[in-house]
Amino acid sequence: MTENVTESLTESLDELARELDRAHVFHSWSAQAQPSSLVVASGLGCRVWDHAGREYLDFSSQLVNVNIGHQHPAVVQAIREQAELLTTIAPATVNLARGEAAKRIVSHAPSGFHKVFFTNGGADANENAIRMARLHTGRDKILSTYRSYHGNTGAAVVATGDWRRIPNEFARGHVHFFGPYLYRSEFWAETPEQESERALRHLEHVILAEGPSSIAAILLETIPGTAGILTPPPGYLAGVRELADRHGILLILDEVMCGFGRTGRWFAFDGYDVRPDLITFAKGVNSGYVPVGGVLISDPIAATFDERVFPGGLTYSGHPLAMASIVAALDAMESEGIVANARDVGDTVIGPALDDLAERHAVIGEVRGVGVFWALELVADRETREPLAPSAMGRIKSALVGRGLLPFVMDNRIHVVPPCIVTADEVAEAMAIYDEVLSTALEGEG
Amino acid sequence: MTENVTESLTESLDELARELDRAHVFHSWSAQAQPSSLVVASGLGCRVWDHAGREYLDFSSQLVNVNIGHQHPAVVQAIREQAELLTTIAPATVNLARGEAAKRIVSHAPSGFHKVFFTNGGADANENAIRMARLHTGRDKILSTYRSYHGNTGAAVVATGDWRRIPNEFARGHVHFFGPYLYRSEFWAETPEQESERALRHLEHVILAEGPSSIAAILLETIPGTAGILTPPPGYLAGVRELADRHGILLILDEVMCGFGRTGRWFAFDGYDVRPDLITFAKGVNSGYVPVGGVLISDPIAATFDERVFPGGLTYSGHPLAMASIVAALDAMESEGIVANARDVGDTVIGPALDDLAERHAVIGEVRGVGVFWALELVADRETREPLAPSAMGRIKSALVGRGLLPFVMDNRIHVVPPCIVTADEVAEAMAIYDEVLSTALEGEG
Repeated sequence: MTENVTESLTESLDELARELDRAHVFHSWSAQAQPSSLVVASGLGCRVWDHAGREYLDFSSQLVNVNIGHQHPAVVQAIREQAELLTTIAPATVNLARGEAAKRIVSHAPSGFHKVFFTNGGADANENAIRMARLHTGRDKILSTYRSYHGNTGAAVVATGDWRRIPNEFARGHVHFFGPYLYRSEFWAETPEQESERALRHLEHVILAEGPSSIAAILLETIPGTAGILTPPPGYLAGVRELADRHGILLILDEVMCGFGRTGRWFAFDGYDVRPDLITFAKGVNSGYVPVGGVLISDPIAATFDERVFPGGLTYSGHPLAMASIVAALDAMESEGIVANARDVGDTVIGPALDDLAERHAVIGEVRGVGVFWALELVADRETREPLAPSAMGRIKSALVGRGLLPFVMDNRIHVVPPCIVTADEVAEAMAIYDEVLSTALEGEG
Repeated sequence: MTENVTESLTESLDELARELDRAHVFHSWSAQAQPSSLVVASGLGCRVWDHAGREYLDFSSQLVNVNIGHQHPAVVQAIREQAELLTTIAPATVNLARGEAAKRIVSHAPSGFHKVFFTNGGADANENAIRMARLHTGRDKILSTYRSYHGNTGAAVVATGDWRRIPNEFARGHVHFFGPYLYRSEFWAETPEQESERALRHLEHVILAEGPSSIAAILLETIPGTAGILTPPPGYLAGVRELADRHGILLILDEVMCGFGRTGRWFAFDGYDVRPDLITFAKGVNSGYVPVGGVLISDPIAATFDERVFPGGLTYSGHPLAMASIVAALDAMESEGIVANARDVGDTVIGPALDDLAERHAVIGEVRGVGVFWALELVADRETREPLAPSAMGRIKSALVGRGLLPFVMDNRIHVVPPCIVTADEVAEAMAIYDEVLSTALEGEG
């Protein structure tokens, strides 16, 4: 009886949440007449629950941000303590939590990086990096790839390559080029080496055609994320660095999604032979527990603004709650070996398991990734590589949620992107669900 | 002895904070070689402290955001509880705190507003309002005033009128005009009625010259804040509404600084005969305890996106910590009569006290404002109204801080902008400091 009452109470909390959402919440990237129905009330580690206790295994890390897992006790505690002390303070003041956070971020950066500018998220991090690059070089254009996502503020969304750029083209000076993507090569390449070499020649020709002296920076996600976890082929990033140097162009690496443990390294570029001039971050730096992002600035660019005013800012830059959560998150990631876990699980469990899955399901055209940052590219036909139709992807997504797994589905891909703390058992549990869904959800297809 | 040890410990915490700041924190809107030295470690109500216990009376509300005062216990408690439950969740899910926050915001809006889109702050709120206006009308241009501040993302900063726009003009379609400002009239007006009428004719001519059918929206701070707390003259805002209606142009009111109690009303426009199509907010909605902003959307514009995808979004839209802080802040503001306090203190204490100050100091050229939103315009000469020189303003600012008052100083103005909870005693304390500083800091001037 009590159990029934409790159950009906918690069910009505879920219903209340849905009602308020439909009535008053305007959702991003969607038509409002198709409201979401997935209520999330609480979480822990790789799992979340609704009010009625329905459990989901989170293999999306939400928007690929909960690197440390949900509700890490040390980070929660740090937020609670800072909330008690001082929630907010203007950026022009000095605050200890802010200095401590910046120091920790710098400690993971390459040599020659000492300063951090804090923003509210990844989009304004990229925007401020672009602003710094333009002012430092005195040049205007920013080159970025068509397959990219750099955020949704006015300039960031135009730097972005994907379709979300088009209704938002309100900023000037952005030029797009094609990056490497061997599975769907824009360069008729057949090997990683060829893809790398040809992608570099293409970029060089774009630089020459646009005019090198007009280009302030090349902005790249180290590993393009939302666009498909497009791990760059050997030599590509080093080649971009060399092209940039040859023409006095800065290199901005966007580590918003791929940074802070996602690839099994502190920064994704630690896995490649490349060093950027500016590094943008958000998401994994504090797992999004409090909204925050920022720019790591190399010394020569920082020095540009020693005597010259930097013309950018925002009310919540270096917000104490966010700063305290960064300190706790980075300390916990370090002391608990969370970045190493992402690397090990990726190498020894997720990679082999996805290869195994691909062997058993012809719908998987390619498996690619590293750490806890993987994509399954689903195709209607392995020969033609025709992407699986949106309707089939929709059925797969619903079936995964129905079986208690929160997936990250984008175009014709499933991104397998659990928190960095994921265990071999949780991977096995997820693999069984992917396996079952790929077997059943496509019945009667093609 | 113990006291001395404690004192030296806390002094070294302040020094550590300054050292880390100089080494690693890149500050907004400033040249980095002139670091701030004001450490803030804790706060309560209208006061903040550094580690060594030095106390400051906060008559800036930081960046005019701490409307409810520092460290309101109910809001701190709500953040702590939500942190324990669920810090972060993707915007596509349904979350009860988000629905509850949106419902409370809607409850203070005019009829015909039911939906809220949440952002990270005021800048991206304005940017998304601009995006909605452009897509709803199918038109491109946004009109805003030269004396305005709308935020620092790529499109928002270009909508901005002040100097911070110029190094950031990376977005198209923004047209600037002059708003009313009787003290320095652009229209050779001598009375408020004349200023209103002439500013409206000027705006009408700009609309006609730009082409009404090319204009998506007029974006205005209801009371321009950073530009000088420029309270609009009678009839101006109603006249703008009428012009907008006549030409099918939307009216976006930016309530980021002036909303949620600052003027002694829930929204500043509640004090005028005007109703907008879109309302942007941030700061006061939760006093900035967690970074957040948003757009309140009128029904016809919301309906535009029922079946059509809204092409905007961000990872931390509707962040649970921010949502819980909104719920607690608005509930406390309501139950404790905080908005009414701002109105009463403004009418009966601050206004008369500032008028009195102006009688005793010829350097005060004009006093204007409402609620807890006031400006003192300082002049070298009351006849010519020549702004007081930057060097003298700098001395005044340092002297105020030196006497334990955190001021908001902008150009040749002191903005008197304490939290909405400010008491008559605290106002008296601040007035004594302003009085003393205006007497002494300008000795030997002119």
